[in-house]
Amino acid sequence: MSKGANTENFTPCHRPQRPPTALMFTLLQTDTETKARRGRMVLPHGVVETPVFMPVGTQGSVKGVSPLELEALDAEIILGNTYHLNLRPGMETMREFGSLHRFSNWRRPILTDSGGFQVFSLAKLRKITEAGVHFQSHIDGSKHFIGPEESMEIQATLGSDIAMLFDECPPYPVSERDAEKSLALTMRWAARCKDWVVQKAPCTDTGRRQMHFGIVQGSSYAALRERAAKELKAMDWDGYAIGGVSVGEPEPEMMHAVESAEPHLPEDKPRYAMGLGTPPQILELIARGVDMFDCVLPTRLARHGTAFTPGGTMNLKNQCYTADKRPIEEGCDCYACRGFSRSYIRHLFRAGEILGIRLITLHNLHFYLNLARQARGHIELGTFAAWRIAFVAGYGPRGSGGD
Amino acid sequence: MSKGANTENFTPCHRPQRPPTALMFTLLQTDTETKARRGRMVLPHGVVETPVFMPVGTQGSVKGVSPLELEALDAEIILGNTYHLNLRPGMETMREFGSLHRFSNWRRPILTDSGGFQVFSLAKLRKITEAGVHFQSHIDGSKHFIGPEESMEIQATLGSDIAMLFDECPPYPVSERDAEKSLALTMRWAARCKDWVVQKAPCTDTGRRQMHFGIVQGSSYAALRERAAKELKAMDWDGYAIGGVSVGEPEPEMMHAVESAEPHLPEDKPRYAMGLGTPPQILELIARGVDMFDCVLPTRLARHGTAFTPGGTMNLKNQCYTADKRPIEEGCDCYACRGFSRSYIRHLFRAGEILGIRLITLHNLHFYLNLARQARGHIELGTFAAWRIAFVAGYGPRGSGGD
Repeated sequence: MSKGANTENFTPCHRPQRPPTALMFTLLQTDTETKARRGRMVLPHGVVETPVFMPVGTQGSVKGVSPLELEALDAEIILGNTYHLNLRPGMETMREFGSLHRFSNWRRPILTDSGGFQVFSLAKLRKITEAGVHFQSHIDGSKHFIGPEESMEIQATLGSDIAMLFDECPPYPVSERDAEKSLALTMRWAARCKDWVVQKAPCTDTGRRQMHFGIVQGSSYAALRERAAKELKAMDWDGYAIGGVSVGEPEPEMMHAVESAEPHLPEDKPRYAMGLGTPPQILELIARGVDMFDCVLPTRLARHGTAFTPGGTMNLKNQCYTADKRPIEEGCDCYACRGFSRSYIRHLFRAGEILGIRLITLHNLHFYLNLARQARGHIELGTFAAWRIAFVAGYGPRGSGGD
Repeated sequence: MSKGANTENFTPCHRPQRPPTALMFTLLQTDTETKARRGRMVLPHGVVETPVFMPVGTQGSVKGVSPLELEALDAEIILGNTYHLNLRPGMETMREFGSLHRFSNWRRPILTDSGGFQVFSLAKLRKITEAGVHFQSHIDGSKHFIGPEESMEIQATLGSDIAMLFDECPPYPVSERDAEKSLALTMRWAARCKDWVVQKAPCTDTGRRQMHFGIVQGSSYAALRERAAKELKAMDWDGYAIGGVSVGEPEPEMMHAVESAEPHLPEDKPRYAMGLGTPPQILELIARGVDMFDCVLPTRLARHGTAFTPGGTMNLKNQCYTADKRPIEEGCDCYACRGFSRSYIRHLFRAGEILGIRLITLHNLHFYLNLARQARGHIELGTFAAWRIAFVAGYGPRGSGGD
């Protein structure tokens, strides 16, 4: 058994009955030229305007930034990671604090993934059974087990606003036969997650109930994606994610996977494309009806000196920035661009100063959050389609980014 | 010649005549029971209340914090490093920007050391001549030369509010004969620094002239310290530092070195103990008439998980903090203590998250800055002597700190 599996130690919701769906997600407006949607989620810890970008805080901290800075950037929701947090600090500590919110001093909404993806991408020596997955920690080799019920329990202990079902993530590429077999297991696990949620009615530290999202799998096979979407819809989740994308497949296949699932998802629930993507990909997916995004690129690339700009990415470690007095992005109003030159940031990286990582991280998160903010504005104004085309055309080498 | 040596490329002050000393330092109050002094420096970039603690920004960044955070901590003056900044980014870049202030986006006063200490502690293969020091960069082995004039030129290019003379730092221990020989060289270099300053009258980017401090050397020998203080006083500097302390000598010798020099320094100029010290040491030195302090301990120890508290230091990586919900220091109003537990900070260190270093750095800088702030308040109220004794007694193992 996983250390996190202890059904006696989280607070069940005092009001287990589900509130009307409208309280959770409101579709405010739909674009006339694309499938882009302007929506609003009311979650236990606050309101989230969609389309939304969610910074990733794998281990209970969005790498390089403080909660205060995230609030100043107007991040409305961040991610936490079931797999990592269950291993470290572990659910004993989490129960001591009462929730991930209280442990990490983040007051706004949190979405936790189920650990499914990480069990398959990080853990060692995993063994998949009908019950769940036996695996060894990537940190210390210790043995653990997570199945659907354990994942939902851990997420209930974390007390996230949105918990994800526990799924199996097939590698890419995978045969249709193996993809179908994997999807069937994911669907049986989904049913068990659903049963657990209905019985336990987990509650957040606000007293309001936790939300639960299904995950559409099916690899590159349109028929499987369609089937998954329909079956999950029949189970009635609070929202629907598209998983198993950005796992190494070419971009057209990724778009196709989303296009295969989207028409079969309910219109009145939020849709979430997991782990995506580059700025142009996010706009393309918004145009295909996706509302929620998370991606490690803005924080991860920042640690390597790479910044996002409307013209593509730039690596501030390059020698050409030695005496460049301009900010990362002219006209940008983030803290980094209001006060610091490319030359100074390059110096900070060469000198190994943490402030270099911090400044690019702030800029990149601002860039991604602002991209979603701009998308919302353009959907409201009816100018989204033209803006998206202009942005993608101006971005530089698609998907790889600038220099 | 050093790359930084180019007398044609910094702005000489438009008003080279020296303003009255009172404009630079005002001795507001002297403690009746100790030699503690309450003073105020008016520098080109702002006012500094003394006793003052100056965070160290060796490479143009106080490690782990942003200029915004330093201002929020109410740091009134920070340090920059001639040796490091001359090697990287180099004076060509600095001239491009006009000053270290403009390069690093720090608007308040800066003190630069002369590079003397680092040439002797960091550089490889140094050769000391009457002219100055030939050495190889600790970064890439490149060859450089810094003498008194070069150091003053580089500091003029950096445009710091306070520049230090270029001195020779003998190792510890050193024979009296060698200490005397070294001091004689330092004094000849001091005279050359003074000549250079009088001729060139370097100016900061504010249009107001740069200030220049002498440095008292003399190792552990009281007679040498006295002689150095008297000779420097006769040269008439804007302030006086005590150097060659905290170089490995026992604490009583360090105190003795300061006590030997202090009575021979002018009362109406600020006194600065270089590179010191632990919190109790700082209070002991304030009681001996010192006004200014800089030390890497708060930022360096933070990177190793160690925090300062009134009871001594604590290492947040220790297992005993696993489920400790208390802040680092109860009652402390820094950002770290207002929102984050010892347990969470320990988790951040274990997980390798930058936020852990950031939170302890913020707390430690707040602790040191607040120590100086409290000292100022107690000198004003006439309660300094009793407070100092109580603080030092409560601090735990003297000099080493708590657990």
